[in-house]
Amino acid sequence: MNATGRIFRVSLFGESHGSAIGAVVDGCPPGIPISPMTFAADLARRRSGARGTTPRAEADLPELHSGIHLGFSTGTPILILFRNLDTRSQDYARFASVPRPGHADFTGAVRYGGFADPRGGGHFSGRITAGLVAAGAIAKLVMPGVAFSTRLLEAGGGTDIDAAVEAALAAGDSIGGLLELRVAGLPVGLGEPFFDSVEGLVAHNVLAVPAVRGIEFGDGFAAARMRGSGHNDAFVSREGKTATNHCGGANGGITNGNEFVLRVAVKPASTIALPQDTLDFTTGAMTSLVGEGRHDACIALRAAVAVEAAAAIALADLVLLSRCHDLPQGDHP
Amino acid sequence: MNATGRIFRVSLFGESHGSAIGAVVDGCPPGIPISPMTFAADLARRRSGARGTTPRAEADLPELHSGIHLGFSTGTPILILFRNLDTRSQDYARFASVPRPGHADFTGAVRYGGFADPRGGGHFSGRITAGLVAAGAIAKLVMPGVAFSTRLLEAGGGTDIDAAVEAALAAGDSIGGLLELRVAGLPVGLGEPFFDSVEGLVAHNVLAVPAVRGIEFGDGFAAARMRGSGHNDAFVSREGKTATNHCGGANGGITNGNEFVLRVAVKPASTIALPQDTLDFTTGAMTSLVGEGRHDACIALRAAVAVEAAAAIALADLVLLSRCHDLPQGDHP
Amino acid sequence: MNATGRIFRVSLFGESHGSAIGAVVDGCPPGIPISPMTFAADLARRRSGARGTTPRAEADLPELHSGIHLGFSTGTPILILFRNLDTRSQDYARFASVPRPGHADFTGAVRYGGFADPRGGGHFSGRITAGLVAAGAIAKLVMPGVAFSTRLLEAGGGTDIDAAVEAALAAGDSIGGLLELRVAGLPVGLGEPFFDSVEGLVAHNVLAVPAVRGIEFGDGFAAARMRGSGHNDAFVSREGKTATNHCGGANGGITNGNEFVLRVAVKPASTIALPQDTLDFTTGAMTSLVGEGRHDACIALRAAVAVEAAAAIALADLVLLSRCHDLPQGDHP
Amino acid sequence: MNATGRIFRVSLFGESHGSAIGAVVDGCPPGIPISPMTFAADLARRRSGARGTTPRAEADLPELHSGIHLGFSTGTPILILFRNLDTRSQDYARFASVPRPGHADFTGAVRYGGFADPRGGGHFSGRITAGLVAAGAIAKLVMPGVAFSTRLLEAGGGTDIDAAVEAALAAGDSIGGLLELRVAGLPVGLGEPFFDSVEGLVAHNVLAVPAVRGIEFGDGFAAARMRGSGHNDAFVSREGKTATNHCGGANGGITNGNEFVLRVAVKPASTIALPQDTLDFTTGAMTSLVGEGRHDACIALRAAVAVEAAAAIALADLVLLSRCHDLPQGDHP
Repeated sequence: MNATGRIFRVSLFGESHGSAIGAVVDGCPPGIPISPMTFAADLARRRSGARGTTPRAEADLPELHSGIHLGFSTGTPILILFRNLDTRSQDYARFASVPRPGHADFTGAVRYGGFADPRGGGHFSGRITAGLVAAGAIAKLVMPGVAFSTRLLEAGGGTDIDAAVEAALAAGDSIGGLLELRVAGLPVGLGEPFFDSVEGLVAHNVLAVPAVRGIEFGDGFAAARMRGSGHNDAFVSREGKTATNHCGGANGGITNGNEFVLRVAVKPASTIALPQDTLDFTTGAMTSLVGEGRHDACIALRAAVAVEAAAAIALADLVLLSRCHDLPQGDHP
Repeated sequence: MNATGRIFRVSLFGESHGSAIGAVVDGCPPGIPISPMTFAADLARRRSGARGTTPRAEADLPELHSGIHLGFSTGTPILILFRNLDTRSQDYARFASVPRPGHADFTGAVRYGGFADPRGGGHFSGRITAGLVAAGAIAKLVMPGVAFSTRLLEAGGGTDIDAAVEAALAAGDSIGGLLELRVAGLPVGLGEPFFDSVEGLVAHNVLAVPAVRGIEFGDGFAAARMRGSGHNDAFVSREGKTATNHCGGANGGITNGNEFVLRVAVKPASTIALPQDTLDFTTGAMTSLVGEGRHDACIALRAAVAVEAAAAIALADLVLLSRCHDLPQGDHP
Repeated sequence: MNATGRIFRVSLFGESHGSAIGAVVDGCPPGIPISPMTFAADLARRRSGARGTTPRAEADLPELHSGIHLGFSTGTPILILFRNLDTRSQDYARFASVPRPGHADFTGAVRYGGFADPRGGGHFSGRITAGLVAAGAIAKLVMPGVAFSTRLLEAGGGTDIDAAVEAALAAGDSIGGLLELRVAGLPVGLGEPFFDSVEGLVAHNVLAVPAVRGIEFGDGFAAARMRGSGHNDAFVSREGKTATNHCGGANGGITNGNEFVLRVAVKPASTIALPQDTLDFTTGAMTSLVGEGRHDACIALRAAVAVEAAAAIALADLVLLSRCHDLPQGDHP
Repeated sequence: MNATGRIFRVSLFGESHGSAIGAVVDGCPPGIPISPMTFAADLARRRSGARGTTPRAEADLPELHSGIHLGFSTGTPILILFRNLDTRSQDYARFASVPRPGHADFTGAVRYGGFADPRGGGHFSGRITAGLVAAGAIAKLVMPGVAFSTRLLEAGGGTDIDAAVEAALAAGDSIGGLLELRVAGLPVGLGEPFFDSVEGLVAHNVLAVPAVRGIEFGDGFAAARMRGSGHNDAFVSREGKTATNHCGGANGGITNGNEFVLRVAVKPASTIALPQDTLDFTTGAMTSLVGEGRHDACIALRAAVAVEAAAAIALADLVLLSRCHDLPQGDHP
């Protein structure tokens, strides 16, 4: 399913070069102020234009067709629609016989029996994350008092990110990056011990963002090299505040009220200007693909807000679910 | 929910020191040979006894109460039950007022309103993974021809694992570890572009295994430091075989028929013999906790098969789901 | 959730007097020919215009924004959008203080905390069934060889339906009706013994159609007055054909290959031209509501195709799910 | 799936003549007092012994293996197990070749590829409802203040139920019955306009009870013969109390705070003492089946509490879900 969530549920739809893409958000509580401006800041972070991002220019004006009345959410499903305007469909049909390395041309052809829309990556396109980011903006409103902060820690292996982008552009190549998301203000008690741990639910969504290849919480992979005496976080307040935060804000799959911290590995975009070897499925011989038009030299720049949105959607669901945990009214001790 | 899966669905239950723990597996296809021996090899990998593992001795005899007839799965829900026999309940009540660092004493108390069973970690215990491992053994049978291989690459930051375990034992401390899982023989086409990507579903389950702090696919975090020209995998056969496997067997969230590769960071167990600072919630003053009895010096040793089971459960679900993707019968082109 | 289905999943959205209503269909197999014409016949059955139906005139032109490429489903989510054009919003705000008998004015206000869109019934409007009917049209294409037939058996308690409608119109009142749906060509083996019985899944969806108050399968309520010797259906062929069909095509919650038969009770529409007593919530005194503008004298006329669509959506999901029931490949007996 | 519920989730397992049957209840809030006595009253209503019920004698002692500590629910999954003790397995294998009319012998064989446990009906047996009834008893505790009342209105078409049972026994036949369930004390606002209407969710579960063939809400099928002026219920209090209750406690799929009323048609049990025609699938010729041993002459007697439990499970889920509907804290108007 191209959908996620049990209470706050987001369904994505659309293809890169179809008429429109977007999301349906079901389970948003009523009474939340929502307008096109709700999405402006996050959509701006996702938009192209900066060095190292694709030159595809989309206005990304969100059309709100349902679930909002007099400026507030009604509690019924919200349809957010974005028109695709700047589509330049090349001859994508050739990718059916000459699949691009690192792309979903081959797996999409098998998964969808040859019927997938190949133009601009179709449903596999990063374009689809506009709907994800919009849904994430609503998710954040469901959690007033919770603050998200996402940074690009590294690009191309270094911290001088501008230089790394310029080098990649000069080489006609692409670079990966390392993102860090910090979430402050989450209540204690979100998540389940098994399967629906807060980390599991967030990872599920975040790994759906194109180009994400790994996720770690708190000290993450560094914890594999630590000792328990160094990793355990001492409690220092009755609210669960800890002296350190090696665990990244969760114990036993459940938030402990400290900052929730995760890092995400973003691979370099598959589309590059350099020629690449691949198989011509028609002839059965190896061939060389020359890079096509528009692409992101550093997709991590624009993935940041999508990762944040994906995490926010999982967390909003947990925040709403946590209201069901309370005891029923009555005379229980 | 303490359950996972859309078609092949696993529900876990039980507490560390309750009468029994186990799993219900719903959606297992009929006709699969299942007996207590089905689980023997994987349960042996999970069992304690080796250096660095807890001395708790459980026979782990799986009782099969439903869903199996004349040695074959019937297609109806399978109940697998394990008795808890070697339980030595100490005074766990004190952990309600003096929560152990790194444990779920605090978060569990909030999440469950003070009603959680604290004995031996209750539902948060690694003991619960016996049911997970048993369900994983069935999951593997649903995918004949798919082979799982899991290795402990590192413990305590090094590759001499025996030495690292001895050093941890001598110090009364615990160490983390790095696991690698390789899955061979998966068909092309498992997964969805958004949300239910193969990586997302596997990560969701794997992060439920206690002590897991991170997961990466293919080159994972290393990919964040690579260039596209170095990360892209050239296709070399019509079956999707690639010359390299930087992506770890998935493009666009969908398996590509190459080996599916992931690594998992396991933190050091929270329970150690050394004294640790924590807050006494009753007095409001800091206090020192002395480590209690039985624990794992290197939980990664026993987590390996649990991680493998968690991944297998997600993959079995996708294998069964993939049968629904075909075209309906008829005269479509 | 305003969504249904595990594999073939339909999400509805929209309000009666908002800008648009529609559906997202996720899980539709690729390769199914779909165009605006796909929906024409069923939408025509749902449209108003005949005696006894509302004079609201909507073109009901389906806009297909995703999931379709070159005339075929791609396998990705399909967005179907219908514009609302003929909206005449009266002063619906008064229904917040003077809720109409039989309507959802009161329950909607409580459920949505006063934020629901009241215009034309908002999300509770029968208008929303346009999306349901469109999704049902796709569901039927997923099951080639399965034939649906729905009849209005009775209106207002009698079989002379035209006369009943005229009488209702003359009285400024509304009438209910009895529908029968027959589905031929379903394979044997759809459904589960518990909870996800074929009857349970179909009833779940059908009872979502506004004004439906009951559903029965096979002999239904008449079976409560029968004896086993008269209700049991004798098998007469190895394909499961039975001499009679008292059970309506299902045994033990699972289709048996005979015609699947159900009947549905549709209540009279709540909106009538006659004055009705109700409470003025502002004053706390009883008052009389005079019927407002456009409505259906016999909503059962237009509910027929919506009931059929609701059932088709459940059955398409089961048809796709049944492909997962097969044995895994291998040497099992 | 043999499971139901989004927040309060019940999974059933077991076969009639296997070692045990039961249920896992996930999502029960913590702090609810639960002991074997919790189930005694409802299990007694389900138990056999009275005239017209099967002579199979089962102690039905619920074993509680998880999710309960010191007499209270912990909030983690609850396993309830019942041993099967009084099993007299006849030669059920013959029903594979000579399927019993009205039974699931044929559909079960197709659905489960010939691997289903045929003894005593296997997973299709009414025996499985012991787990359903136990889960229903917990569901009721989740809703303190909500009262359930279920009556057998008719058996065999009449209201002298004892006489109808005696006549059926004398004839070696079985009779159906009509049940009515009334639920008082439900809050206003449970349910969704589309798909997850309160009626749809309840019907989904109730139709899983073996032998149920129809369900109606409020006036139900009688409403199909009514006029709107006679069916609409006038509001008479600000809490939503209505002068009449034709709608049975729900408007627009959402509870309105009045008594929630439904009736259920139960068919006569398929197993009778009289000989019946059916096909011998081996020879391809018609044959006569002589009724086997133990059965219920009036299954509606024992189905009453199972119907009540099935409804309670759906309603408990909605009660817990309703806590998520509230506005988020903050300064929204």
